[in-house]
Amino acid sequence: MTERVDKHILKNGMVILGEQMEQVGSVAFGFMLPAGAAMLAEGCCGAANVIADWIFRGAGDKNSRQLGDALDGLGLHRASSISSSHITIGAALEASNLAEALELHGDIILRPRLESEQFEPARQLVIDGIKALDDDPRQKVMVKLREQFYPSPLGRSTIGDIDELNGLTDEKTKEIIKDNFNLSQTIFAVAGKYDFDIICRQMENLFETNEQETIEQLEIGQKAGKYVHIDNEGAQVHIGLMTGTVKPGDDDYYNARVAVSVLSGGMSARLFTEVREKRGLCYAIGARYHGLKEAAGIMCYAGTTPEKAQETLDVITEQFEQLERGISEEEMHRAKVGLKAALILQSESSSSRAGAIGGDYYILGRVRSLDEIKNKIEATSVESVLGFLRNNKFKNFTVVTIGPKQITVR
Amino acid sequence: MTERVDKHILKNGMVILGEQMEQVGSVAFGFMLPAGAAMLAEGCCGAANVIADWIFRGAGDKNSRQLGDALDGLGLHRASSISSSHITIGAALEASNLAEALELHGDIILRPRLESEQFEPARQLVIDGIKALDDDPRQKVMVKLREQFYPSPLGRSTIGDIDELNGLTDEKTKEIIKDNFNLSQTIFAVAGKYDFDIICRQMENLFETNEQETIEQLEIGQKAGKYVHIDNEGAQVHIGLMTGTVKPGDDDYYNARVAVSVLSGGMSARLFTEVREKRGLCYAIGARYHGLKEAAGIMCYAGTTPEKAQETLDVITEQFEQLERGISEEEMHRAKVGLKAALILQSESSSSRAGAIGGDYYILGRVRSLDEIKNKIEATSVESVLGFLRNNKFKNFTVVTIGPKQITVR
Repeated sequence: MTERVDKHILKNGMVILGEQMEQVGSVAFGFMLPAGAAMLAEGCCGAANVIADWIFRGAGDKNSRQLGDALDGLGLHRASSISSSHITIGAALEASNLAEALELHGDIILRPRLESEQFEPARQLVIDGIKALDDDPRQKVMVKLREQFYPSPLGRSTIGDIDELNGLTDEKTKEIIKDNFNLSQTIFAVAGKYDFDIICRQMENLFETNEQETIEQLEIGQKAGKYVHIDNEGAQVHIGLMTGTVKPGDDDYYNARVAVSVLSGGMSARLFTEVREKRGLCYAIGARYHGLKEAAGIMCYAGTTPEKAQETLDVITEQFEQLERGISEEEMHRAKVGLKAALILQSESSSSRAGAIGGDYYILGRVRSLDEIKNKIEATSVESVLGFLRNNKFKNFTVVTIGPKQITVR
Repeated sequence: MTERVDKHILKNGMVILGEQMEQVGSVAFGFMLPAGAAMLAEGCCGAANVIADWIFRGAGDKNSRQLGDALDGLGLHRASSISSSHITIGAALEASNLAEALELHGDIILRPRLESEQFEPARQLVIDGIKALDDDPRQKVMVKLREQFYPSPLGRSTIGDIDELNGLTDEKTKEIIKDNFNLSQTIFAVAGKYDFDIICRQMENLFETNEQETIEQLEIGQKAGKYVHIDNEGAQVHIGLMTGTVKPGDDDYYNARVAVSVLSGGMSARLFTEVREKRGLCYAIGARYHGLKEAAGIMCYAGTTPEKAQETLDVITEQFEQLERGISEEEMHRAKVGLKAALILQSESSSSRAGAIGGDYYILGRVRSLDEIKNKIEATSVESVLGFLRNNKFKNFTVVTIGPKQITVR
């Protein structure tokens, strides 16, 4: 688990990061463009999703069909995603095709054709995707939970909003691309098999300019509310619950991670044993740390029957609140082992590593080595976690439910 | 992409397979127990799922809690699954903990406590999981599709049946375990970092007996039907479609895989461009090869609106049927590149490889090397794929829809 981080910054501020992985034949990369859901002007929710589709419908000298053919001809496994902060245009592929893939992405990012007749189908697919969320309450409850939990615009839906999309024009969307595809704020991360010098020369050719564009600060507003219920006629009640905690750069970050692992790190963790095993309250339960640059929380999902929904929520909040009263050394050991094992498994995936180093740089301004993370986890103790919990109580829960029956949030 | 396959067979017929992966720190393993959904007696649909939970609720000298603690203490990422043929009890973990993990699995498989008071919560969670499927029509339509497509009992639900589970007793379930945890038919597959000699000695100690148990042959019945519609009030119509094709051991297997890749291998593949890009008919579409030992098919999923559902189905079946009329060299090239790239990415995941070598051995009686697969893909041509398609027409589609509106299947 030793690794080295490669770093190079272009004159315009665009950051190039790399992590070599020995003995793999693949490479994964991601362009993190500062055009995520929260970065867009009010009233454009879903524009990022339209953009992530539209820019692939022809770029440079290639029309939509030719571009799709060229990307597939390189065996690219594409993986675009929208977060609060970024549109990430990523892919995994055989290492020997990397240079050609980056060349095509230079066109996609800097010279997308953005033809008007391609805008409508791109928008329609995003709208259809939002409608489809109604048939996926498990995912929908977590999207709504982030909307409720984070102060506006941080929690803005990364799927989109139908009303706002209906008002979106191709001209407005072009403007957003022009304003938000800001290379000075763009991070490129690559992991796997590559030659960093060759990548840097190519990235200079493709993306280097002398202009340092200004960086706009996000204005943070109010939180939406404490409890929202969305009625549907489904068989289950889907519960999303979130409570605020320290951000990824905080000294207590690893204490928070270990605390979540005690609650939800495995089959022996508290939520699983207390809610599922002992009481048989739900078929699915899990909690995880969710961190943005500006705010963070612990989010929890549980899927249960209408009859068991109230008791499920009550037991979950009780488990969160009780944690500060005590953790055994055995629980602590299992929580740490679980986190370290997850780290080792992630360290073997080029896509995971490319995502992790890019995310680190954006949030922390530097990339943590795996050894650093491992040592920081190792350095936590029952005392440090309990101290953290007493100073950062799990309380003021934001709750969202989807199902045939509302429940009571204390 | 060179690899070697380790193999050892115990006296009772249990097969030990391994694939070394250099430079990884993890190891993944799976015990493939011949107790999958189709292997059980009529009337016990879901018993495999109950078993996969129940055997973890205490084994050997450990009660449920102690066993969970011990597994989590090793940092095990557990991944049990139920297929038509097997219950696979698997995990990924740091390589240094493998011996201890196998020791625990010896107890779980050979000496589960199967306490009566632990049976009910195990069964209840499986029933809750089936109910939850109603809130996940995208997964449900594919479960129903396999039920309709495969002759009984091959397509039997791998999730379970509530009525049959309500009739299941702990005694009956114990009998199933006794009959179906047949070591003579069990395959153990491991991939990642390990010492094969050490594993073989340990497996001999844990699992070797002198008895060769008899192997019962599966009796294959009739197919269920051509079109089934399940009415729900959701926003979307979920379409599952399946057509029979050659089995994994067939000479034409790679031609079938390339044909599916032409239809659905990437953004430039036919289904994506014809159904989604050109006509904007659906937000999600994909087809893949699905092979059992006894039968195989190409399965396709599409999610669309009620208004577009009929046209979506019509265009999909048209694309399947038209494929034999011609494939361009460029399409052929992209289909092959896509399959090979997927192979390289899979080759870097210890969990994928453990699953792949175990599956190969069960279905083919031997493990294919990655080079063999690559060469066989390489050896296909436009002529060989078209020849295959003309002799194995894509026709007689089995269709399942879930949504507010029925459609017409020609």
